[in-house]
Amino acid sequence: MKLAEFDSWMSAETERVERALEAWVPADAPAGLGLAMRYGVLDGGKRVRPLLVLAASQAVHGLPAAALRAACAVELIHAYSLVHDDMPCMDNDVLRRGKPTVHVQFGEAQAMLAGDAMQAMAFEVLTPCSDDPAHSPDVPPALQARLCALLARAAGHAGMAGGQAIDLASIGLPLGEQALRDMHHRKTGALLQASVLMGAACGGVTPAQWSALADYGDALGLAFQVVDDILDVTQASATLGKTAGKDLDNNKPTYVTVLGLDAARRHATELRDKAQSALARSGLPDAAWLSLLADKVVEREH
Amino acid sequence: MKLAEFDSWMSAETERVERALEAWVPADAPAGLGLAMRYGVLDGGKRVRPLLVLAASQAVHGLPAAALRAACAVELIHAYSLVHDDMPCMDNDVLRRGKPTVHVQFGEAQAMLAGDAMQAMAFEVLTPCSDDPAHSPDVPPALQARLCALLARAAGHAGMAGGQAIDLASIGLPLGEQALRDMHHRKTGALLQASVLMGAACGGVTPAQWSALADYGDALGLAFQVVDDILDVTQASATLGKTAGKDLDNNKPTYVTVLGLDAARRHATELRDKAQSALARSGLPDAAWLSLLADKVVEREH
Repeated sequence: MKLAEFDSWMSAETERVERALEAWVPADAPAGLGLAMRYGVLDGGKRVRPLLVLAASQAVHGLPAAALRAACAVELIHAYSLVHDDMPCMDNDVLRRGKPTVHVQFGEAQAMLAGDAMQAMAFEVLTPCSDDPAHSPDVPPALQARLCALLARAAGHAGMAGGQAIDLASIGLPLGEQALRDMHHRKTGALLQASVLMGAACGGVTPAQWSALADYGDALGLAFQVVDDILDVTQASATLGKTAGKDLDNNKPTYVTVLGLDAARRHATELRDKAQSALARSGLPDAAWLSLLADKVVEREH
Repeated sequence: MKLAEFDSWMSAETERVERALEAWVPADAPAGLGLAMRYGVLDGGKRVRPLLVLAASQAVHGLPAAALRAACAVELIHAYSLVHDDMPCMDNDVLRRGKPTVHVQFGEAQAMLAGDAMQAMAFEVLTPCSDDPAHSPDVPPALQARLCALLARAAGHAGMAGGQAIDLASIGLPLGEQALRDMHHRKTGALLQASVLMGAACGGVTPAQWSALADYGDALGLAFQVVDDILDVTQASATLGKTAGKDLDNNKPTYVTVLGLDAARRHATELRDKAQSALARSGLPDAAWLSLLADKVVEREH
């Protein structure tokens, strides 16, 4: 019963995010830039980060209009990072979400610009203003500022971009579990945790609840990456919608290469349990979707 | 007298911006990322945008702490755009501010990440929060949100990134003056205008003053680009600190190729006069630095 309800909540919310992104990311941005941006962010992806924002907001009875904006902003940051990550000077990947990557489709220069514009757009979406056609007066300015603060820090040098720099520098190096964890805390974990916290910021929480949700997001973020590393070696490209085995091919350290497959699987389960107990500690009564999302992250097959 | 005072105001404010950037852009960001970011933004550039922010804020008696943050944020966006613009897939330039460009010094992947992290950092700087060591409680959250809104729109698809996309698409094409103006409105003008408006947002202005300052920023932004195009053909690389004549070499349309050198010079003067009369229309009594900045932009030799 609960699971069926969860599935229909997920479909409805994913659909709402798609529609909002579709409306906000402009097809008519100059010289094909809008088309490249839309190609990079629409019609694809599991939308894990938006769902985390929306589930967290629902758990704290957050402002729906603010949560939808936060959900789209986080996804724009995630999508831009994939566009840049796939470029020849980074991972040089040609397949993403079952389609040619943005630079394959539109050229490298346009891909770089589209990623840049998507990052800016995330902050545009978070700050509706009265001289803007998409203005919605229902996100208080203080909340807009808080959401920008959380997102910028998760995306920047201390978060995602910093993690990617470590990733880049670690190719071919023997990385220990601690160094690997630090890299993933930043590279994947920061934005997943920020998704949870941006959702929480849309409502009212106590400092203790905030800290419990931060722990939930932290454990879930690492679990997500461990599972990603497992799927990279156990699944075919067709299932993943991206090139499988590419971390191994690129000689990148992963949880599987560092821990081995069985221990990586056990670790993913431990992290899920850790996320669940942090969630229980928050004492939030309406956190069912957050709990089921943690299960889903660990049990997913692509 | 006024000119000497202006020069010492410029030196003092530039110094203040340098110190703030020095303090905010972290040397210890992981895996050399901080070094690449600092290389891209410290010790270089004319700091025109920060000076516009600070002059506009002073003209409206704006909050100094907010204006300093806005000044650094705008410069971070400008500096990131140069880092990405210089990369091989864009302009492929090896010299900037008299030094090797970031990708020459640190590699393409690190340059792309540094640019990405600098953009995020602009929004971090605008949103000091209480869980942040650099917290200053003296920027009201509503102002933080307003500054993020102005900056994101100037940097994104409708502004700078959109202008770069047009630039990219226009190589080798016969562009008319109107199309050239549209490109530069976005590519250079949007961020220069936003600098003025972000400074104005730090204080209180009437809608009529806001609109006059927007017109000032608009004319000044175009004047800046016209002069850039003139200097590109009349000055040597050593004076510019970047590769001279590269627009011609790259077969890019410029004001000089479209209007001719003499008409371009006349046009720059007209635009300066337009900026000055918009400024006069604002009726702001303390706008002397904005007025002298408009002269400086047109009379500069590098």
